[in-house]
Amino acid sequence: MNRFVFFGGKGGVGKTTVSAAYGLNCARAGLETLLVSTDPAHSTSDVFDQQFGDEPTAVSGHDGLWAMEIDPEAEIDRHMREIKATMSDQVSPAIVNEIDRQIELAHRTPGAYEAALFDRLIDVMRSSEDYDRVVFDTSPTGGTLRLLSLPEFLESWVERLREKRAESVDLFEKAAIGDKEARAKLADDPILARLAERKEQFAFAGETLREDAAFFLVLNPDELSIEESHRAVDDLESAGLSVGGLVVNKVAPEPDPEESGTGATFLRERHRTERDRLDRIEREFDQPIVAVIEQRVAEIKGGLLDEIAAELDIDVTAAPPEQG
Amino acid sequence: MNRFVFFGGKGGVGKTTVSAAYGLNCARAGLETLLVSTDPAHSTSDVFDQQFGDEPTAVSGHDGLWAMEIDPEAEIDRHMREIKATMSDQVSPAIVNEIDRQIELAHRTPGAYEAALFDRLIDVMRSSEDYDRVVFDTSPTGGTLRLLSLPEFLESWVERLREKRAESVDLFEKAAIGDKEARAKLADDPILARLAERKEQFAFAGETLREDAAFFLVLNPDELSIEESHRAVDDLESAGLSVGGLVVNKVAPEPDPEESGTGATFLRERHRTERDRLDRIEREFDQPIVAVIEQRVAEIKGGLLDEIAAELDIDVTAAPPEQG
Repeated sequence: MNRFVFFGGKGGVGKTTVSAAYGLNCARAGLETLLVSTDPAHSTSDVFDQQFGDEPTAVSGHDGLWAMEIDPEAEIDRHMREIKATMSDQVSPAIVNEIDRQIELAHRTPGAYEAALFDRLIDVMRSSEDYDRVVFDTSPTGGTLRLLSLPEFLESWVERLREKRAESVDLFEKAAIGDKEARAKLADDPILARLAERKEQFAFAGETLREDAAFFLVLNPDELSIEESHRAVDDLESAGLSVGGLVVNKVAPEPDPEESGTGATFLRERHRTERDRLDRIEREFDQPIVAVIEQRVAEIKGGLLDEIAAELDIDVTAAPPEQG
Repeated sequence: MNRFVFFGGKGGVGKTTVSAAYGLNCARAGLETLLVSTDPAHSTSDVFDQQFGDEPTAVSGHDGLWAMEIDPEAEIDRHMREIKATMSDQVSPAIVNEIDRQIELAHRTPGAYEAALFDRLIDVMRSSEDYDRVVFDTSPTGGTLRLLSLPEFLESWVERLREKRAESVDLFEKAAIGDKEARAKLADDPILARLAERKEQFAFAGETLREDAAFFLVLNPDELSIEESHRAVDDLESAGLSVGGLVVNKVAPEPDPEESGTGATFLRERHRTERDRLDRIEREFDQPIVAVIEQRVAEIKGGLLDEIAAELDIDVTAAPPEQG
């Protein structure tokens, strides 16, 4: 199995639970495992009854298992402050306020959340070399995956900016009879450096996701979830990433054969409908179903988590050593 | 009730069904009603077993009811083509290709979908004066609502651009000893005109949503849906919009008292959990619960839609005449 494992799927399907169960299996198989949670609603802290924050913390009672929680709202604020700070070093003080306003506006637009979160995920991927396995309870989605094609766009843009700058310096030198400083400034232009750094960041993400990551989708046996999973598979494949398997979660239990009444009728009909959907999933997807997990009414933690971990048929062997 | 009625909530909670049921009630109360569906997964076409497209079409068998479906993917493409066309009229032919690339890049970023859809919703609001009521199976969300504050940002930006342009023309006139054309061009600058038009579009949206629209949230009795509804109420209120009520959908049925067995135990426990959540919803929200709808296993259409329509306690009186 690859070193980075992502569990994608729409909100509420059970990504955090499945990720925690898989992380537990990896740790029990002897891998130093880091669980990275991004879901503010049902968090890894709830699953293990232990508070986690922005830094990896050992999960008590589980050797080799570490967890951290990324708060996406805080991430947007941090992202905004960081960009403001970088910018204020790079632009004239006269326009700092105006730039700040523009940055705030950009962070209020749709998509800022996804973009900030993706930035943070890349940071975690870069700084987790101490772990044999890193498990994320989210997966890059359509809009974010498109950012992976950013390096090529940035490549030509940075190149063009560099040419324009060089032309300006040439003209400036001819007009002002030489300003050695202008040419020196070009060599370490902070804005060009920042763009080059962004390009490098997304190039790293693209390469790592393609070569060192596995993607699983968690879905529920309902039409919407199936449709969304098709879309997620397509989006991942468009970005050159492949899905390793599907986890079907929250399947309704079947009533006992002798049960009858309003409840039994409802549940039996529902169970039949969901079985049809499971058949449909098996038919429509190329990916294997690696677990079918029955819905529990109680919150998943402790013994229930162990049950679910036992139901997951996902490889927990270590990643092959990196190619030099 | 206001003329525009929006049913918001996360994917899969049943917005399309509830919107169709409410639209039916409005039409039966004698209002010319337009149902606007934006959900590609469970569409209004499925509910009425009739194909709808981008233009309002009469719903067969239901006097006074019209429906249309907006395809958000097609909307992004249309949006992109339109912007490219506008731009190619406004920029030098030499840079058209570069501009096209930039526009394509912008449409690949997260949020493009929401922004394009919102644009289309505004169009529909502008062109639906023939209807007494227009019902949307979606509601502007956080990211999109922030666009409503765009007019003020654009206001100062357009103003500043205008000043800069005027300064340039002044300098140009002084240097070149008068170019009357430059000043004439400033008067009908197509880019400034386009920005002014966008500003006007969002100003219209803000005003109409604040004065002539009602918002309802559809939610399911699960933690995630409750959390998301809190967030949606906050987002709407931050934008100066208020939520009229909550529709709690997909509540599990209670088994008959004499039922027992695996199924009955599961369903009874689930029903109890959901009752607790209904209490919590009642406690935590200022908005009234306007319907509690039991989950049906079969697809909602025909007689089932009538049942749900009868369960909705949402006002269907006509909007007050517009204030001059």
